[in-house]
Amino acid sequence: MAQTVLKDFDLNIDYPNFAFEVTHVCGQTGARTGVIKTPHGTLETPNYIFCGTKASIKNLSPIQMKEAGTDIILANTYHLMIQPGAELIQKIGGLHKFTNWGGPMLTDSGGFQVFSMGHGTCADEIKGRSTGAKKENLLEINEDGAFFRSYLDGRKLCLNPETSMDIQRKLGADLIVQMDECTAYQVTKEYTAKSMEMSMRWGDRSLRAFEKSHDGTQGLYGVVQGGVYEDLRKTSADYVASRPFFGTAVGGCLGGSDEEMFGILDWIREINHPGRPVHFLGIGRMKDVLNGVAYGIDTFDCVMPTRIARHGMALMKGHPNERINLVNARYKDDPEPLDPTLDIPCSRDYSKAYIHHLLKAGEMLAFQILSQHNVAVINRLMRETRKAIQAGTLDQLKKDYAVE
Amino acid sequence: MAQTVLKDFDLNIDYPNFAFEVTHVCGQTGARTGVIKTPHGTLETPNYIFCGTKASIKNLSPIQMKEAGTDIILANTYHLMIQPGAELIQKIGGLHKFTNWGGPMLTDSGGFQVFSMGHGTCADEIKGRSTGAKKENLLEINEDGAFFRSYLDGRKLCLNPETSMDIQRKLGADLIVQMDECTAYQVTKEYTAKSMEMSMRWGDRSLRAFEKSHDGTQGLYGVVQGGVYEDLRKTSADYVASRPFFGTAVGGCLGGSDEEMFGILDWIREINHPGRPVHFLGIGRMKDVLNGVAYGIDTFDCVMPTRIARHGMALMKGHPNERINLVNARYKDDPEPLDPTLDIPCSRDYSKAYIHHLLKAGEMLAFQILSQHNVAVINRLMRETRKAIQAGTLDQLKKDYAVE
Repeated sequence: MAQTVLKDFDLNIDYPNFAFEVTHVCGQTGARTGVIKTPHGTLETPNYIFCGTKASIKNLSPIQMKEAGTDIILANTYHLMIQPGAELIQKIGGLHKFTNWGGPMLTDSGGFQVFSMGHGTCADEIKGRSTGAKKENLLEINEDGAFFRSYLDGRKLCLNPETSMDIQRKLGADLIVQMDECTAYQVTKEYTAKSMEMSMRWGDRSLRAFEKSHDGTQGLYGVVQGGVYEDLRKTSADYVASRPFFGTAVGGCLGGSDEEMFGILDWIREINHPGRPVHFLGIGRMKDVLNGVAYGIDTFDCVMPTRIARHGMALMKGHPNERINLVNARYKDDPEPLDPTLDIPCSRDYSKAYIHHLLKAGEMLAFQILSQHNVAVINRLMRETRKAIQAGTLDQLKKDYAVE
Repeated sequence: MAQTVLKDFDLNIDYPNFAFEVTHVCGQTGARTGVIKTPHGTLETPNYIFCGTKASIKNLSPIQMKEAGTDIILANTYHLMIQPGAELIQKIGGLHKFTNWGGPMLTDSGGFQVFSMGHGTCADEIKGRSTGAKKENLLEINEDGAFFRSYLDGRKLCLNPETSMDIQRKLGADLIVQMDECTAYQVTKEYTAKSMEMSMRWGDRSLRAFEKSHDGTQGLYGVVQGGVYEDLRKTSADYVASRPFFGTAVGGCLGGSDEEMFGILDWIREINHPGRPVHFLGIGRMKDVLNGVAYGIDTFDCVMPTRIARHGMALMKGHPNERINLVNARYKDDPEPLDPTLDIPCSRDYSKAYIHHLLKAGEMLAFQILSQHNVAVINRLMRETRKAIQAGTLDQLKKDYAVE
């Protein structure tokens, strides 16, 4: 760690308007329930943060998100700095006012998207994205930060710890994330180590930049990097726990299988600061939630619920694939609703035949119905997960959801 | 009228579950208020029927339509017979059950769309459509009916009075419309006369077909045709008034100017059956409503409110153009909502800057917000119009809406 030995950190940061309280720990699984307090409201954990990338959950209004039982959403710094720009959102009164989402909100650092341009991270595998077209936009990554071109107008932009903190300050979400580099699956251990060390230095720069304009309205998460390497993950987790972050986020490459992913969580769970909420960046299939809570994960996020809706898919509790595809001809004359046990019109009142028809006819209402249904299914999963942790019945709940 | 002399009509048709009551007639303008009773509820008139072409109001759920103050919607027979087919909708329980719209509903005859394929009707001018690509799908129009190919799979289909009644019966809307031919602006008076006469014969065939399976759940409208020719319009109106229709619809070519259009309404207003509701097919700008009620129009319909929303436009009360385009850069940082005097979140809670951002970023939520706003603006217009007719203040209301 030649260049990378971190100096002792001399800043202390208080988060007077934030709190995280663990309300129960399951003796068998280690899963926990808790409460995160933010200036825009309190949420019980485990919970799910829905992705409103460009300051909008795709096809759903804040009212519909609330109807579906949502507690917290996120928006992406990278997309918003490009369009419409952080200054504009600040001028309108910040993300809460801009979007009309009055509840707790998170923004990420923007780093994930920038680095995805370069080499393709695990997320491209996890999320099924191709990066070819984006490569030319990434100009340079160095100790200072990442330099890239706007996909909109070719402007040269920089994301580094200072600009990321500045942009996230202007956006005004409750929970924000340090600038880090997100490494790819195929890179060497040596590259991963160097990158992780830089992320630590960027963590300190993020904290210093954050502290300068800290007014108590935001809580900062540190990010555990280190790829699929146990020693690196542990070093990174040690670092995050040693610094005055409000929360711990787990990011970067999580391997190529569920075993590797949960193995990584297992390495760091005892190192993570026990008094801070742990967020699992970008992960959120139903089985990830039901397995992840046993590794101390408190919050999840993923674009999956609304993204699969735009491909005609509905999440189904207890289905071995978690989902069904309403475009399938088998639903053509199916009079049954998606899930009559969910007390919300999207799940209870429309027949599968109607949703199939809307999809075949290109009617946008299909995406609204399926998106809201998927969000409602996830929020029920989170309610049931919290209840099962407290009742010690997580194993039964996993069976109910057909999760091994 | 050689071939066309109509025999005396020997059928009487009762509509025991329907009623139309005129509640007030304005002494100055002749505009009237009324109540239409249907098996799925009662609506006050003048009112506006929103277009849910393929059994869905574009981008809006039935709940959102209700929130925006909607009393009645329509669906298009032509589109639904092709996809998903009337039999399927009947199997699921009819349009009300299929769509979850529990209120009053209308279907048209399907003729309008079929004939639009052939020569382009006035509607193409009014509605800005091109017909070139559709022409090849129209195979033949003769006394029996119209033969055309499905745009979906090339199947040969027939719409005639009997099939139109059968399909509309299966769809199950409350208000349905006789099969008629809709003539184009550029056709001769001779063609218009022959067509109008055929529409009269088709009216009688529609009534006979309707009566055979009449079970009291549907009310049939006759259609006044005759293009821009006074004698033809009057003959057609005479015919419709003489037959046991529940309502009168005004269709066909309405000329090239507002003067011609309202002139046509003026010719027939004294001939229309005074005890029946009068529907103006496919017409519904705000100024058309405010002017049309003075010619005895009770209901309007137009795709405009939701169609212009998909082009980024919001209806504005009192604006000389009736609408503004939120894509325009002038709204980039406009913190004001669309209309804070409308007590609905879409109009009251989102800044124009946010809607502008959603449109520029390609976020579908924009269309949901704008569509619901436009529907809410029209429904307020209808409430205010009814009130103004009863108070004798229609002229003042027209000034409030900047209508000459």
